[in-house]
Amino acid sequence: MTFVHHLRPRYAEVDVQGVVFNAHWLTYFDEASTRFFDWMGFPPAVAFFEHFDVMVVKAVLEWEGPAGFDDDVAITVTCGRMGTKSFDLVFTATCEGAPACVGTITYVSVVPGTHDSTEVPGALRTALQD
Amino acid sequence: MTFVHHLRPRYAEVDVQGVVFNAHWLTYFDEASTRFFDWMGFPPAVAFFEHFDVMVVKAVLEWEGPAGFDDDVAITVTCGRMGTKSFDLVFTATCEGAPACVGTITYVSVVPGTHDSTEVPGALRTALQD
Amino acid sequence: MTFVHHLRPRYAEVDVQGVVFNAHWLTYFDEASTRFFDWMGFPPAVAFFEHFDVMVVKAVLEWEGPAGFDDDVAITVTCGRMGTKSFDLVFTATCEGAPACVGTITYVSVVPGTHDSTEVPGALRTALQD
Amino acid sequence: MTFVHHLRPRYAEVDVQGVVFNAHWLTYFDEASTRFFDWMGFPPAVAFFEHFDVMVVKAVLEWEGPAGFDDDVAITVTCGRMGTKSFDLVFTATCEGAPACVGTITYVSVVPGTHDSTEVPGALRTALQD
Repeated sequence: MTFVHHLRPRYAEVDVQGVVFNAHWLTYFDEASTRFFDWMGFPPAVAFFEHFDVMVVKAVLEWEGPAGFDDDVAITVTCGRMGTKSFDLVFTATCEGAPACVGTITYVSVVPGTHDSTEVPGALRTALQD
Repeated sequence: MTFVHHLRPRYAEVDVQGVVFNAHWLTYFDEASTRFFDWMGFPPAVAFFEHFDVMVVKAVLEWEGPAGFDDDVAITVTCGRMGTKSFDLVFTATCEGAPACVGTITYVSVVPGTHDSTEVPGALRTALQD
Repeated sequence: MTFVHHLRPRYAEVDVQGVVFNAHWLTYFDEASTRFFDWMGFPPAVAFFEHFDVMVVKAVLEWEGPAGFDDDVAITVTCGRMGTKSFDLVFTATCEGAPACVGTITYVSVVPGTHDSTEVPGALRTALQD
Repeated sequence: MTFVHHLRPRYAEVDVQGVVFNAHWLTYFDEASTRFFDWMGFPPAVAFFEHFDVMVVKAVLEWEGPAGFDDDVAITVTCGRMGTKSFDLVFTATCEGAPACVGTITYVSVVPGTHDSTEVPGALRTALQD
């Protein structure tokens, strides 16, 4: 089963060219990751601060087409590479059905409240690999 | 002596009408307040987390003209009303010399790390009233 | 019938105090206005650029309580004052049921593509006063 | 001669972990590119809308350390790969002297006002390769 998150670009997020400014895609993918973790059974406001936490260490974004104000943006989230202390999420976004942006984001598992890397918790690893 | 902070709107902050989106003015005034506190001798990254902290409880913004990408925005900051546990800062912004936006923001003094109101510290009160 | 828009603050919108940074409320209210106009029969991406447009000239915001990451924020939108060339929308936001923020925003009707004020179009006036 | 742009993270840009939220780095690099083009003799507010324009098609970001509120962030901008219709800018950011973030951003030259790719203008190519 694949997870898809829908959102509509806000007026404030569209630039003078009429398209979503590039930085907002990282925020959209972060919002999609919030819903993705929630969907897997890890409500982020609880899970991230009490049980585990992650830090973003790398992001690769490629734009394939524009998204405009109030368009229907659909973001599919899947787990890519799974390592011992880190993993990749792959975000594939369409806008009104046309390719818009693909992002691969690398997360390192850290001890909550610190910047110290640690093994990806077993429950999270299992959920991500399902 | 009057404090003036200069900034240039970022490309990302200008909307499809070619003007700075309204919400960014609150961020600009917050940036101006950071430099204003620093100028008074309270470097914010230290002062706010160790010695005192404030919460914004009210903001009144009036727009008088537009600001565009990379324009010269000048923001004058003065202290308006001074109360026991709160005070107002007044931000008067021009863009390339023409009136742009006026904001009056009310700050409540809180115990650092809490949401509990407390008296405005004496050193801060003195500096604001000079 | 009252219009209510729900949203959840993004991780990126919460500051180091753990609460939504003040400027984002103007963006939230703008998002709520987009859905409010859509609900009244004016899909914003079409209506605003082809039929009518508005400019924000004043905003008054009062905060009554915090909102945190991924909380349920509910924003009720009603029309306040209705003038010839301008009108106010009143946004009343709760967070997890508790009062959070009230905003009154004044919009001036402008000729699309310009900054020239004009009478509020009849269809919009009728819808707002219902 | 190397171009360096300095900025200080705003309070609004720092998240609950006390570090700049990842998406803002794309905005910082965009701000640095604005000043970089200006420094080369292409004031962006004029050059981009009248003479040439660019679209971002790819961004690769790697984080090496955190940046916090009001820290001194220094961003060095250089031209990486130069193609016929596109080029890369490389942004190397330090925070208080320590490595913070490296970004490689690919820009495609487009006909102003359109999304049609075109050759990088000669004057821009020459300036970038100096």
